[in-house]
Amino acid sequence: VGATPNPDKLGHAILANILAGGFTGRVYPVNPKEDRILGLQAYPTVSSIPGDLDLVVVVVPAALVAGILREAAGKGARAGIVISGGFRESGRLDLEDELKAVVRQTGLRIVGPNCQGINYRPNRLCASWPLVTANGPMAVISQSGTVAATLAGWAVDEGFGITATVSLGNQVDVCETDLVEYFAGDPATRTIALYLEGARDGRRFVRAVRQTLPHKPIVVLKSGVTAGGQRAAASHTRSLAGRDEVFDGVCRQVGLIRAPNLEALYDYAKGSAALAHGVGPRVAVITSSGGSGILAVDEAERCGLSVPVFSPQVTAALREAHLPPNAILANPLDLTVCLAQDFERAVDVLVGCEAADYYLLIFGDPIPGATGMVQRLRERIGSRAAVSYLGGGEVEKEERLRLHAAGIPVFPTPERAIGGIRAAYLAGRGNKL
Amino acid sequence: VGATPNPDKLGHAILANILAGGFTGRVYPVNPKEDRILGLQAYPTVSSIPGDLDLVVVVVPAALVAGILREAAGKGARAGIVISGGFRESGRLDLEDELKAVVRQTGLRIVGPNCQGINYRPNRLCASWPLVTANGPMAVISQSGTVAATLAGWAVDEGFGITATVSLGNQVDVCETDLVEYFAGDPATRTIALYLEGARDGRRFVRAVRQTLPHKPIVVLKSGVTAGGQRAAASHTRSLAGRDEVFDGVCRQVGLIRAPNLEALYDYAKGSAALAHGVGPRVAVITSSGGSGILAVDEAERCGLSVPVFSPQVTAALREAHLPPNAILANPLDLTVCLAQDFERAVDVLVGCEAADYYLLIFGDPIPGATGMVQRLRERIGSRAAVSYLGGGEVEKEERLRLHAAGIPVFPTPERAIGGIRAAYLAGRGNKL
Repeated sequence: VGATPNPDKLGHAILANILAGGFTGRVYPVNPKEDRILGLQAYPTVSSIPGDLDLVVVVVPAALVAGILREAAGKGARAGIVISGGFRESGRLDLEDELKAVVRQTGLRIVGPNCQGINYRPNRLCASWPLVTANGPMAVISQSGTVAATLAGWAVDEGFGITATVSLGNQVDVCETDLVEYFAGDPATRTIALYLEGARDGRRFVRAVRQTLPHKPIVVLKSGVTAGGQRAAASHTRSLAGRDEVFDGVCRQVGLIRAPNLEALYDYAKGSAALAHGVGPRVAVITSSGGSGILAVDEAERCGLSVPVFSPQVTAALREAHLPPNAILANPLDLTVCLAQDFERAVDVLVGCEAADYYLLIFGDPIPGATGMVQRLRERIGSRAAVSYLGGGEVEKEERLRLHAAGIPVFPTPERAIGGIRAAYLAGRGNKL
Repeated sequence: VGATPNPDKLGHAILANILAGGFTGRVYPVNPKEDRILGLQAYPTVSSIPGDLDLVVVVVPAALVAGILREAAGKGARAGIVISGGFRESGRLDLEDELKAVVRQTGLRIVGPNCQGINYRPNRLCASWPLVTANGPMAVISQSGTVAATLAGWAVDEGFGITATVSLGNQVDVCETDLVEYFAGDPATRTIALYLEGARDGRRFVRAVRQTLPHKPIVVLKSGVTAGGQRAAASHTRSLAGRDEVFDGVCRQVGLIRAPNLEALYDYAKGSAALAHGVGPRVAVITSSGGSGILAVDEAERCGLSVPVFSPQVTAALREAHLPPNAILANPLDLTVCLAQDFERAVDVLVGCEAADYYLLIFGDPIPGATGMVQRLRERIGSRAAVSYLGGGEVEKEERLRLHAAGIPVFPTPERAIGGIRAAYLAGRGNKL
């Protein structure tokens, strides 16, 4: 509702994305001034649509929204996505109360208003923007449309993909907790990434998180950490952010993995979606770049993981593995100038000696054949290997897509790779190091 | 020397990059087994090259390097870049002593061995890999070839560009301090990014830094922070990393801006190269995304900047600026759904009121015309505006290139933008908040 042929309007972009996203159900554009939009017959009102509805997506001025939702409920719709702004965030609590009345009286469930919509890949419904069609294991629940779009954009660019993005907006009805509950039971979702300014019902949120975490990890970026941030959060979603130490304590208690910034939210989601959980804190770093290896060690030790010194037995075994002559047989294992098979031989030796729990392979140059090698390794050692690829130019970009298509997580720096590994480790330990 | 037609070899890549990089001096490939390489006449030895030499680039087995350098010195060369490995890092201190003897006896200056070469854009010499030809304001000095290549790769992808990358390798002769001194006087370089495992001569390093900082900022990523990292650094470049608190204290004392990780090194270099220095700690955040604004505030307050509450006078002036009806007239100033000119009007009001020192514009959606708007703003307010662009899909990628071409720094997240602003502020304050 609010579909339009004008390409500058959101009502155009959303209809276009629903169609381009591959949704296979019937789609009815509603606009009283148009006959056809994007090749589909348009209807002047919701009531004039033939047959029943499941979902109504609304992009019209705020004052019209409640009436449209009632019409849709009358046509059998059970859910609505209200993109339109102009409610509580503009001081129009009255209009928001109207929406709440619709929910109460009709049983229609609403996401929004003032949101960026939903993209749910299992049924290929992109009622949002930008258009994202790359399927992956990460569901994003966000109190900021831009945060959701940003995570989805990264996941597309890198070939990592999403199961869903949900932009919550003002949450007159559906809130972050409802969605945690939903994605807890969603078979396509392996990890939940949550951007939060405040939880509407703290107790219920904690209960839902507790029930979810045994089955799948939740990583959370909570803003409003500082006094200024709390003030801004209160303006944005009228969230009461609460004292940050309290939220931090809750995270530790229940096992929510907290990200310190937006990129970390993505990294932690990636690591916890793609790597085995809770294996252990010991990381073996195998690298073609000495400097990158040191950065990985620094970050690992700062965040509570370890890059243990190899025992003399392990070093002796490495010595017989026909690694490059200049290789430094320590942890990090610096292969210097090397080929993909050198990484493979090294990891095989280390796995044979049970020398580490996770394996970080750092490709600091273009390494031909890297993807096939990591895939073979994974067949032998399970999802315990993460990759950091940097300084590899165009080869790196292609390989990143291939590795992600194969389910192997790739990070742009050694430090961020360690973050991803740590999240996977914490996911299996209830966030306890 | 070591040039080859075999595209799998470094000796091929480096010659190819020297030619493709646009170097206009004469280039002589040396290889006793080839007549022509990449369209150039090849010579069997250095001595057989007609005429004098300025520079010799060496990619041959370690045992042959000293002899070749002597030959080159005999032909008038004053400098050598030794890419070849197999020296100290492989326990061959004897071979490294030979190189030192060449330096002592001939006066030839050497970068390397065991390095990734030099790319210096003012004379278009890319004696390194990958091939990078995007000119910009950042010189990278690195004790890791991969770190240099990674920063250069980002600078290319984003259109930010470099003046130079220098990979130092084992530093038998030229060290980080020599290069700090060089780039201090290099007119094309506006900021120096330094990756360091240890300084060879701490006192001399500090002296060079002190002399440079009044003229241009130096940002530094020093690894070997943790015990494990120090152990790894000792293996990699045999650096004695020293106690990290000591280095940290030196940074604060002399005004070196220290980056906590690889991405921050890049962000700080970008911010300090492109933004005015030391203006003040007050940041105005103008955003189309409420959530992103909060993330910016949190990060600013965490790192010692402020996002001050606007005075009633400022708020009153904003109220008359015809901003979007749903805009939240606070700091962050959340324009919600908006156009490029809304950002422009808002900043003009704030500048008129002297409400802030730096301006962070966050584009949380594709914003048509953003580049032209920020350029106009810069003509009025100077280099005080940074951009964070996120969630903007393909429009964002194009605009990032355009903004960087115009010298305006763009960051992928609000938190990283704050890091860049902070670096510019510190650069004018001697690293004192």
